[in-house]
Amino acid sequence: MILGKEQIEDSNQENLSRHKKNHEFISDQINNAEEVIKKLIDFQVAIPSWALGTGGTRFGRFPGGGEPRSLEEKIEDIGLLHALNGSSGAISLHIPWDIPEDSDVIKNLAAQHGLRFDAMNSNTFQDQPDQKLSYKFGSMQHVDKAVRKQAVDHNIEVIKYGKELGSKSLTVWLSDGSTFPGQLNFRKAFLNTLESLREVYAALPPDWKMFVEYKAYEPNFYSTTVGDWGQSLLYTSKLGPQAYTLVDLGHHLPNANIEQIVALLLMEGKLAGFHFNDSKYGDDDLTVGSIKPYQLFLIFNELVEGMDARNMNHANDLAWMIDASHNVKDPLEDLLQSVEAIMIAYAQSLILERKKLVEAQNNNDVVTAQEILQKAFRTDVRAIVAEARLRAGGALNPLSVFRNEKVRENLIKERGSKTTATGL
Amino acid sequence: MILGKEQIEDSNQENLSRHKKNHEFISDQINNAEEVIKKLIDFQVAIPSWALGTGGTRFGRFPGGGEPRSLEEKIEDIGLLHALNGSSGAISLHIPWDIPEDSDVIKNLAAQHGLRFDAMNSNTFQDQPDQKLSYKFGSMQHVDKAVRKQAVDHNIEVIKYGKELGSKSLTVWLSDGSTFPGQLNFRKAFLNTLESLREVYAALPPDWKMFVEYKAYEPNFYSTTVGDWGQSLLYTSKLGPQAYTLVDLGHHLPNANIEQIVALLLMEGKLAGFHFNDSKYGDDDLTVGSIKPYQLFLIFNELVEGMDARNMNHANDLAWMIDASHNVKDPLEDLLQSVEAIMIAYAQSLILERKKLVEAQNNNDVVTAQEILQKAFRTDVRAIVAEARLRAGGALNPLSVFRNEKVRENLIKERGSKTTATGL
Amino acid sequence: MILGKEQIEDSNQENLSRHKKNHEFISDQINNAEEVIKKLIDFQVAIPSWALGTGGTRFGRFPGGGEPRSLEEKIEDIGLLHALNGSSGAISLHIPWDIPEDSDVIKNLAAQHGLRFDAMNSNTFQDQPDQKLSYKFGSMQHVDKAVRKQAVDHNIEVIKYGKELGSKSLTVWLSDGSTFPGQLNFRKAFLNTLESLREVYAALPPDWKMFVEYKAYEPNFYSTTVGDWGQSLLYTSKLGPQAYTLVDLGHHLPNANIEQIVALLLMEGKLAGFHFNDSKYGDDDLTVGSIKPYQLFLIFNELVEGMDARNMNHANDLAWMIDASHNVKDPLEDLLQSVEAIMIAYAQSLILERKKLVEAQNNNDVVTAQEILQKAFRTDVRAIVAEARLRAGGALNPLSVFRNEKVRENLIKERGSKTTATGL
Amino acid sequence: MILGKEQIEDSNQENLSRHKKNHEFISDQINNAEEVIKKLIDFQVAIPSWALGTGGTRFGRFPGGGEPRSLEEKIEDIGLLHALNGSSGAISLHIPWDIPEDSDVIKNLAAQHGLRFDAMNSNTFQDQPDQKLSYKFGSMQHVDKAVRKQAVDHNIEVIKYGKELGSKSLTVWLSDGSTFPGQLNFRKAFLNTLESLREVYAALPPDWKMFVEYKAYEPNFYSTTVGDWGQSLLYTSKLGPQAYTLVDLGHHLPNANIEQIVALLLMEGKLAGFHFNDSKYGDDDLTVGSIKPYQLFLIFNELVEGMDARNMNHANDLAWMIDASHNVKDPLEDLLQSVEAIMIAYAQSLILERKKLVEAQNNNDVVTAQEILQKAFRTDVRAIVAEARLRAGGALNPLSVFRNEKVRENLIKERGSKTTATGL
Repeated sequence: MILGKEQIEDSNQENLSRHKKNHEFISDQINNAEEVIKKLIDFQVAIPSWALGTGGTRFGRFPGGGEPRSLEEKIEDIGLLHALNGSSGAISLHIPWDIPEDSDVIKNLAAQHGLRFDAMNSNTFQDQPDQKLSYKFGSMQHVDKAVRKQAVDHNIEVIKYGKELGSKSLTVWLSDGSTFPGQLNFRKAFLNTLESLREVYAALPPDWKMFVEYKAYEPNFYSTTVGDWGQSLLYTSKLGPQAYTLVDLGHHLPNANIEQIVALLLMEGKLAGFHFNDSKYGDDDLTVGSIKPYQLFLIFNELVEGMDARNMNHANDLAWMIDASHNVKDPLEDLLQSVEAIMIAYAQSLILERKKLVEAQNNNDVVTAQEILQKAFRTDVRAIVAEARLRAGGALNPLSVFRNEKVRENLIKERGSKTTATGL
Repeated sequence: MILGKEQIEDSNQENLSRHKKNHEFISDQINNAEEVIKKLIDFQVAIPSWALGTGGTRFGRFPGGGEPRSLEEKIEDIGLLHALNGSSGAISLHIPWDIPEDSDVIKNLAAQHGLRFDAMNSNTFQDQPDQKLSYKFGSMQHVDKAVRKQAVDHNIEVIKYGKELGSKSLTVWLSDGSTFPGQLNFRKAFLNTLESLREVYAALPPDWKMFVEYKAYEPNFYSTTVGDWGQSLLYTSKLGPQAYTLVDLGHHLPNANIEQIVALLLMEGKLAGFHFNDSKYGDDDLTVGSIKPYQLFLIFNELVEGMDARNMNHANDLAWMIDASHNVKDPLEDLLQSVEAIMIAYAQSLILERKKLVEAQNNNDVVTAQEILQKAFRTDVRAIVAEARLRAGGALNPLSVFRNEKVRENLIKERGSKTTATGL
Repeated sequence: MILGKEQIEDSNQENLSRHKKNHEFISDQINNAEEVIKKLIDFQVAIPSWALGTGGTRFGRFPGGGEPRSLEEKIEDIGLLHALNGSSGAISLHIPWDIPEDSDVIKNLAAQHGLRFDAMNSNTFQDQPDQKLSYKFGSMQHVDKAVRKQAVDHNIEVIKYGKELGSKSLTVWLSDGSTFPGQLNFRKAFLNTLESLREVYAALPPDWKMFVEYKAYEPNFYSTTVGDWGQSLLYTSKLGPQAYTLVDLGHHLPNANIEQIVALLLMEGKLAGFHFNDSKYGDDDLTVGSIKPYQLFLIFNELVEGMDARNMNHANDLAWMIDASHNVKDPLEDLLQSVEAIMIAYAQSLILERKKLVEAQNNNDVVTAQEILQKAFRTDVRAIVAEARLRAGGALNPLSVFRNEKVRENLIKERGSKTTATGL
Repeated sequence: MILGKEQIEDSNQENLSRHKKNHEFISDQINNAEEVIKKLIDFQVAIPSWALGTGGTRFGRFPGGGEPRSLEEKIEDIGLLHALNGSSGAISLHIPWDIPEDSDVIKNLAAQHGLRFDAMNSNTFQDQPDQKLSYKFGSMQHVDKAVRKQAVDHNIEVIKYGKELGSKSLTVWLSDGSTFPGQLNFRKAFLNTLESLREVYAALPPDWKMFVEYKAYEPNFYSTTVGDWGQSLLYTSKLGPQAYTLVDLGHHLPNANIEQIVALLLMEGKLAGFHFNDSKYGDDDLTVGSIKPYQLFLIFNELVEGMDARNMNHANDLAWMIDASHNVKDPLEDLLQSVEAIMIAYAQSLILERKKLVEAQNNNDVVTAQEILQKAFRTDVRAIVAEARLRAGGALNPLSVFRNEKVRENLIKERGSKTTATGL
C-alpha cells in the first residue's frame, strides 16, 4: 500500500487553519522558530526492520495482522511512515533476517520511498537453522576459537551486504556474557571479544564506522561482556578511530544518569548514536517518550550542547534509530508516536535559552538553570514539529491519516491477518 | 529411564566413609542434628512440569536434548530427581500443557515414582491455538466480560483436572496489567480481577486452597494488576479463608526485603508458600541460591520462626515449589542444585540458636544477633543434608550419580536430541 | 518582611499584556478553562515548617542566610510564599521543633497571613536533649514497653498542640526498623507498633484523622516497620476509619508504580494525602517535578479520576503537602518551584479528555489512550496556572518578584546570615 | 586502654581444644591449609580513623560512649582491634580531622601498636570553619578557579602530612556533582576536575599512588562528577601510571556486577583497592558481609584470580580498607565483625579449586563451575581464620575477649560517656 500525496494533503487542509493559529502563537513565543523548523526537517530517524511486526516476551506474543512478510514489504511499511511524518527516511537492516536477494532492486525500491540504509545489524545472539556452531555460550567471547571465527565471519558478511546497499556502519550488539557466577572468566571473555572485534574492525571499509552497543543484562542474567558504557568505551578506544559506542536507552542499571554518559562520550569523540525507546523496569522497549519524556529531553539537551561544542551536524554526525518492541500496539502507530516524541524533545532542546543557561551555571544559580530547562520543556512545541512535517510533505496529524485511510486494514487485506514479521 | 537402587547405593558406598566423618563432625557441633535430619527428610519440594526443558528468553532459546515430550516423561524426569535426592516428591502441573488423557494412569505412574500432585497452575497469559477470545489485553481484568468468563472457566477446568489427580490447590498467576500509562483504569482492573477470582473461588472444593501470586512487572511493563504482596493480600483477604498469597522470589522490585514480607504474611495467616529461584536483575529465574544464598537463608529463618510461632507443620502447611528457567544448564542438573540449596538454607535455619536470638533481640544486642545468624549460615551443613538424603534412600552426591550414570545421554537416546518440552 | 500588595501588582502590570495573550490562547484550546482556574484557586499546598531552612545530608550542610529562627518567622516565610502564589495557604508543624508558646498568638499570626494549620507531625526518630529513653532502637516498635509509652505520650502531646491551633490531623512517620538481619523480630515489631498506634488512635479527637506514612528505607537500612503501602494499609485497616495511609513520593523502592498505589488506596477509601517531592535515587527530597514531571502528572491523573469517582472534594478531602530538602537552592525559591510544578500537573490532569480516555480504555485502544494523556501533558498550561494566581491576588511570576524585591537579602538583614532553621 | 597479651592468651586457652579439633577437620578437607593461613596472616585491613565513633544519618545520630577524642585515642582504638585480630595493622587518616600536631610522636605511637599509615584522605565535601571559599557547588569541578585551587592546595597539604607519617597514597573522594538537571555542564565539570586532579598528581611523590574513588550518588542526587568506574578509569588513564581507581562496595547503582568491574580494572592494571562495607539499598555503609556475603566472596574470587594472573602480592599490591558507618552497633565490635567477614571471604577464595574451575569454564560446564564456587563458599573456614589469628598473636574469639574484658566500659571510664568522634 502506498499513501497518495492527495490523501495527506486533504487531511492537512482540514487541520490547516487551526494549525496556522498554533504555529503563529508558538513562533511568536520563541526567537528561533524558523531555524528550529529547518533542523527538524533535516533530522531523520532510522526505523529498524525488525520493529515492524508485533513484539513478544518470553511469555508469549499476541500478533496483529498485515505484518510485512519480506524485506520489500518492510521497506513499504517504512515508506508509509516516512510519507506520513517526513522524518523516517532511513532503514536499519538485520542480517540474516533481511538478506537482500538482489541489492540493486532493494536499493531502487528504498530510493522510491526516499529511504537510505542506516547501520547494518549482525546477529550472533541466536542460532540459525543451518548454523554450524552454537552461540549458547557466547559468540565473540567464546572459549572456542572456531565459534569466535564464525561470529567474526558473520559480521564481515553483514558488512558485505551493507556495502552493496550503501550503508556506512555496522552495529555490533553482543548478548555475550554469563548467567551464573563462575561461568566465565571476565578478563578472558573481554580479551576474546576484543580480539574478535579487531578482526571485524580490520574488515571495515575506510569510510565505515563500527558501533559497539552495551547492555547491562538480558538475555544473560549475571554478567554481560559489553555491559556498560565504560566497557564499550574500553573496546572502542582500543579498536581505533572508526569504532564508537552506541547508547540504547533501555540498556542501563536502574536510575543511571544517561544524559551524563552521553555528554562524556561526546566529549571523548566516541558517541555513535542512539537506539531510542523507553522503559520503566528494564529493557522494556516501550514507545519513545511514553514513560520518562523529561529524561528524553535532558538527553537531547546534552546532545545539542555537546554536538554544537564540537561543530557537529545534528542530522548526519550521529546515528539516530528507534529500537522498540510493540507488544500491545499496532507497530506502525507505535513508531509514529515514537518519532513524534523524538522530534518534540529535539525541538524543546533547540528552543532552550542556552546562553542564559551557561550564565546561570557560571553563577551556580541552580534555580534559574532549572527554570530555563523547564521553560523549554513546558513549551508546547507540537505546532513547530507539525509545521516541519508539513513543509517536508508529511501529514499535520500522521496518526489520524493512518487511521482514516485504514492503512492497517489495507495491509491486512494485502498480506493476510496471520503474518508474522521476523524480529523479537 | 529409571535409576536403579543399586546404582545409587554403589555410588554411596564409595563416598560413605568420607561422609561419615563429615556427618560426625557436624553432628558434634550442633545440638539438634537428629531432629534436623528428620525435618529434612519430611521436607519435599515440588517440581514444576514446565521446568524440565530448556528455558528461553525473548532473544532465543538454545535447547539441549532428551527433554520430556509428554506428561508421562515429565513424571519420569521428576522420578529421577526424587530417586536421587529424596526431596522432590511432588509435581506441579500446568494446564493446558499437561492435560492428562487418563487421570488414573497418570496418578498410578506418579505413585510408582513416589510423587504426589502439588498445586495446579492455570494459564491465561497466552493464547492457545483453539482459544475463542484473546488475552492480549488481560484475562481476569479484561474490560470485556466474555474474556473474563473465559478465564474463569479455564481456571474451573483446571480445578477439575486437579481433583482427578488428587491436587489440593490452584495457583493463579495473572500477567494482567498494562504496558503504557492510560491503558487501563487501575481500579476497574482490580475490581474486575476480584470479581473473576471470586467466581473461581466459589468453584473451589472445600478442602482446596487458592494461591494468588503477585509479580511486579513482566510481561507487562507499566503496571501489573496483582503487582505486589499488598495487592495480593487485598485480594486474598476479600476472597476468604481459602485464599492465600504466593511468593515468588523473583517477582519484586529491586532491593525488596522479601523475608519481612514472608514474616508479615505468616503473621496474617495468609502465606501460601513459595516459588523458589534466584535473580540478580529481575525475574531472572536462576538456580535457587546461586546469587543470594544469604537472602534465602534469611527467608527460611523467618519461615521457621513464623511457622513455629503458629504451630505449623514445616513440611505440609505451606506449598514449596521451584520455579526456575534453565537457559544454559541441563534442566535436571539445575533442579538438583536448586533443591540442594533449599535444603541447605532450611538446615541452617533449623540449627540457628533461636532462644539466644530472642534474648539478643530483647537486649537490642545487634552484634550478637548478627553473630547468631552468621554462625548458622557459616556452618557447613552439607553433611547433614546428605545424611537426610541417605536415609531417604537417595544419593550422597546426586549430581555425580546423574553424570556417572549418563542420565542425560540415556534420555537423549530414548527421546531424541531435538525434543522441546512445553514451558517458557 | 511582608510583601506589599502593590509590589506584586506592579510586577503583574508589567507582565499582564503578555499573560493575557497566553491565557487567551490556552483558554481557546481547552473546553473547561474557567472550571480549571476555579479548582486551581481552591487548591492549597501545605508547607512544612522544617523545609524553610537549608537541608543537609550526613556529609554536611551548606547553610544560606536569613533562615527563620522561630515559629513566628516560619509563619512569616510561608506568608511570603502565599502572598506570591496564593497556593501555600497552610502550614504543617513539627513537634518538638515548633511548640507554640502561646497558641492564640500563633493562630492570629497565621490568620493574618491567610494560613491554616495542616497536619501535625510528631518526632520519634531523634533523641531530644531532655528525653528519658532513647529511640536508637525504635520507638513504637521498641522491645521495651516504656519506650513505646514515651513515644505514644509524645504523639498524644502533639495532638494537644494541634487541637489548640485548629489542626485536624496527625502524621505519624516512624523511622522504626532495623539495620541488620536478626536485629528484630518483624512480627513482634509490627504488633508492638500496632499496639502503640492504637493507643494514639484512641486519643484522637473524633473529627481528626491519623496519617500513617510508610517508607522503604533510611534511616534504617535493612528493614522498616512501616515499609510500604501494603504494611501501612494493614495498620490503618486494623486501626479504624480515622486512620489513613500517607504517600511520600520518595519513599519507594526503585521503579515502583506510585500512581497505581494511589488509585488502589483511593479505591479502599484509605488515602490520606501526599508528601510531594522528587527523586532520582532514593528519598532525595528534591524539588517537586524536577526529575520526573510525567510521573507527577500520572499521579494527579489518578487522583482526579479516583476522587471524582468517589465524589470527593479535590481541595479538602486529601492532605497536600510538600516534603523536600533544599541543599543547594534558596528554600523559598525551591518551594515556589515546587508549588508551581504541582499546580501545573494538577491543571494538566484537569484538562485531560476523560470521557475519551474511558472510551479508549474500553476499546483497548492503547495508542489513543497514550495520545490523550500526552496531549494533556504536552499542553502548556502555565498561563492557566498564572491566571489562577492572578485572581487569587498572587504574582504572575512569583520567582521574579521574589528576586526583584530582594526578599532573601531583606531576610538576611532582619535575621542575620548565620541563622539555621530547625529541620533536617 | 591496652589489652594485655595474657588476657588474650587466657581466653585462647579456654577455646583451644575445641579450636584444634575444628582446625584439624578443616585442614583435612582442603589441600592448602598452611598456605592459606600464611596468606591470611599477611593480609592487613586498614581501619579508617573516622569509623571509630558512632555514625549517623541526616535524621540523627545516637552516640554511644567512650569514643576517641583525639588522633592518639583513635590509634589506641585500632591498636585494640589489631591486638585482638592481628589483621587491622593499618590506619587511614582523614584531613583535616586528623592533623597530627607532632608527626614523630604519632608515628611512634602507631609503631607501638604495630600499625602503619595507609592511604591519606582529603576532604573537600564539607566546609571547615576557617575555610575561605565554600564547596557548596563542588570543589575540583567548581566553575570558579579559586575554589578549585583551594581544593588542590588542600590535597597537596594532605600529601605533606602523609609524607611525614610514612603513608604512600592519597585517596581522593569527591562529592562533586549536581543535584538538579541543568545545574552544571557535565563536560566542563569533568574537564575542571581533570585539571585539578592533574595539579595534585603533579605534587605526588614518585613512590606514591593516587586513588580516585567513584560514587554513583549522594550527597549529590542528580549527577556525580566521578560517578562510576568508567569515569574514574577515564580520569586515571589520563592522569598517568600513579593514578588508580578505588572501589567502594556501596558506591554503585542497584544490581551492579562489582566483581566484573574488579576483574576489568585489574586487567587494565588500574585497580587501587577497596573500601569494604555492605549495603542493601544505597551507600548504607553496613558491616562487611552482613547483607551479601556471597557477593563479597565473588569479589575476592576475582581478586585472587586477577592478582595471581599478574603476579601481584595479595597483601601489599592493593589497598584494603573498611569504610563503614556504625549507627546501631559499638564501632569496635562492628569493625571486628567486618574484618572477620573479609578474612572468611578471602580464605574461601583461596581454597577454591581454581584449576578445576578453569577446566569447567573451558568446557562451558556451568553446573560444575557453580559447584566449585559453592563448595568453597559453603566450606566452614572459620577455624582457618582463627588459626591465622592465633599464630599472629590475636584472639581465637576477638568479640568474646572484647566483651569479657569490658573494653567499651573501660573506654567510657577513661574518656567519658558523652564523647563524639569526628566522622560521618
